[in-house]
Amino acid sequence: MYDLPAIRKDFPLLEEFIYLDNAATTQTPVPAVKAMEEYFYKYAANHGRGAHRLARMTTDKYEDARETIASFLNTDVTGTVFTRNATESINMVAYGLQWHPGDHVIVSIVEHHSNLLPWLRLRDHGVEVTVVQANEEGVVAPEQIDLALKDNTRLVAVNHVTNVFGSIQDVRKITRIGHKNGAQVLIDASQSAGHMPLNIKELGMDFLVTPGHKGLLGPQGTGVLCLRDPDSIEPMYLGGGMVSSVSIDSYQIEASPARFEAGTPNIPGVIGLGRAVEYVRDTGIEDIEKHETILAKKAASLLAEIPQVQVYGPQNRAGVVSFNVRGMNPHDVAIILDQTRKICVRSGYHCAMPAIQSVGLKGTVRASFALYNTMEEVEALVETVSDIATLVA
Amino acid sequence: MYDLPAIRKDFPLLEEFIYLDNAATTQTPVPAVKAMEEYFYKYAANHGRGAHRLARMTTDKYEDARETIASFLNTDVTGTVFTRNATESINMVAYGLQWHPGDHVIVSIVEHHSNLLPWLRLRDHGVEVTVVQANEEGVVAPEQIDLALKDNTRLVAVNHVTNVFGSIQDVRKITRIGHKNGAQVLIDASQSAGHMPLNIKELGMDFLVTPGHKGLLGPQGTGVLCLRDPDSIEPMYLGGGMVSSVSIDSYQIEASPARFEAGTPNIPGVIGLGRAVEYVRDTGIEDIEKHETILAKKAASLLAEIPQVQVYGPQNRAGVVSFNVRGMNPHDVAIILDQTRKICVRSGYHCAMPAIQSVGLKGTVRASFALYNTMEEVEALVETVSDIATLVA
Repeated sequence: MYDLPAIRKDFPLLEEFIYLDNAATTQTPVPAVKAMEEYFYKYAANHGRGAHRLARMTTDKYEDARETIASFLNTDVTGTVFTRNATESINMVAYGLQWHPGDHVIVSIVEHHSNLLPWLRLRDHGVEVTVVQANEEGVVAPEQIDLALKDNTRLVAVNHVTNVFGSIQDVRKITRIGHKNGAQVLIDASQSAGHMPLNIKELGMDFLVTPGHKGLLGPQGTGVLCLRDPDSIEPMYLGGGMVSSVSIDSYQIEASPARFEAGTPNIPGVIGLGRAVEYVRDTGIEDIEKHETILAKKAASLLAEIPQVQVYGPQNRAGVVSFNVRGMNPHDVAIILDQTRKICVRSGYHCAMPAIQSVGLKGTVRASFALYNTMEEVEALVETVSDIATLVA
Repeated sequence: MYDLPAIRKDFPLLEEFIYLDNAATTQTPVPAVKAMEEYFYKYAANHGRGAHRLARMTTDKYEDARETIASFLNTDVTGTVFTRNATESINMVAYGLQWHPGDHVIVSIVEHHSNLLPWLRLRDHGVEVTVVQANEEGVVAPEQIDLALKDNTRLVAVNHVTNVFGSIQDVRKITRIGHKNGAQVLIDASQSAGHMPLNIKELGMDFLVTPGHKGLLGPQGTGVLCLRDPDSIEPMYLGGGMVSSVSIDSYQIEASPARFEAGTPNIPGVIGLGRAVEYVRDTGIEDIEKHETILAKKAASLLAEIPQVQVYGPQNRAGVVSFNVRGMNPHDVAIILDQTRKICVRSGYHCAMPAIQSVGLKGTVRASFALYNTMEEVEALVETVSDIATLVA
């Protein structure tokens, strides 16, 4: 079944640290690091650009990773594009759609800056942007999206799981609502991919973005953009590797995914990501979801029992727990957790200032969980926060 | 002095292959791979976003890499931006400058597609693009740039070394010519950085771009954009990590380099690149240039002695040698080189179709050299090409 001790052996850093900053980035398992090392030492070359065997092997391994990820998320290989991170994926969509003054975009208040700023910038081009509210627990009511819909709504862009509250959006319903009016739907799966089952074809969103380095356990510097219709956006970059013919008067751009991957890609990163996704798949995504949810719910309920502690977000949460110790700056709490017990958590606005301010806060402490965390680590967190709370009692 | 056997020990793949595809990508030395491995196993976290010690150590190492590279190229840290590749760096400039209809851009015919297409696309916005010719050896006469200059010339964008011919452009003179008319100058140093001394402050170009994975020996997925004036372009992406405050009505973008690095960067890649550049620096850039030039010149002169072989490019070349065996498709030559002696070279258009066609060709075989190649490898190449040539004699 879920062999936690065996899993932990694949993440050497966990021997020394209690790592609860997984919503910022997870650790990468040894087999994925070894896959990258194998690339560098055994067959490193450039992708898709040479007749020699190293180039062919590199291309095969890179494309194998694409198949692994497309299959894991149940989407087409041709619409599976490798990017640097979810931020880039979102910007590629914001750039690539053909906007006209008067077009309308709907986002929510509980978005990461990366799923907010690219849309707000469109206002400079006459695009109207509606930011719908969420409830106090960070949940966006699909009805709010419905109410915001207009005839000229082109896109609905919302998160699947908020990185601040751990709240889970009903992306199935939101996608259906967007589509009934002919709008396209972008789902930011940064905090859900690799943490819970995600079936793109079944959910039907037009664009799904995720970093490679969070739930998918890949290295930093990798991200994915999944497109239902690869022709729905124009490429953001032009350059080598994505054109079939070029003259000084014209050029012919290749089909997806090549059209979106100009220049030499992050080959070792993608190979590492592919191996990491195999690791997630083989561990079992349902078991991972169950494990992380149990830890997060336990952490939330135990922290809430500490009188000076306020916990945010809904009961039904993913593996993210935001809280505050009354009278203390979240950064100070994070620093003490690190210095006393080597507990790594994040503090501050979590790149989601409007989300935090919408509930009247100036920041939180955030503990976030991954497949390798343990109940003992939850207890260490709670004990230490409890000790910290007595400082201000 | 130049200890070639010691250098070769740092590139395990060279034990099995004769790797002469360095203009596509070089191999990455063991110390750089180990630096990435150390990151994953000892201190992996996200950059600039946490109070805990792992985030701080990650940030320090990432920023150390920036200082190493800025110092190596003699440019300011604040104008040294990490990108995925040179292609992205160029697209960031093409996107980030504020263009107006009637603006004028000068490029050359011997550019890689990545330094051609982003400029040609500007024609859709009313920008005029002049493509100046080169001579038969791929050298762009600075006078041609001078002749093409107009009152409305905003940018001159040319390569430092052509990836097809190995020809070296007089970027000092070209930069001076561009500046005398108030235009900005972008130099594509993809084939020069790490292969020869490069002093940005002294040369004075406004934008210098390079991949991390060629002469700088870093991993694929890394690139650099050096900006003389970091405020001269707008950021292409918006998102986390590059804003100081955000509301639904406005946002405040941070100063460079943060303003250009939205989202989680390629942290392991940049750390590996930093270590790789230390490796280049410590090996000695003058010695590397000398070594590579000797190999390339020898290869060019020996290949030219084979009656059926035509060699392209100038006598005074960098480490790139393009050639053809008369009557043979370059791809077939490359495949035979690989299959008979495990010699890895590139064949075809080299992502520079206009450059190749400008000299009446449909492709070349390209051997390109790095600091770790040997004269024995040059001889193996020449012998095998000689054998191949007898097939069509």
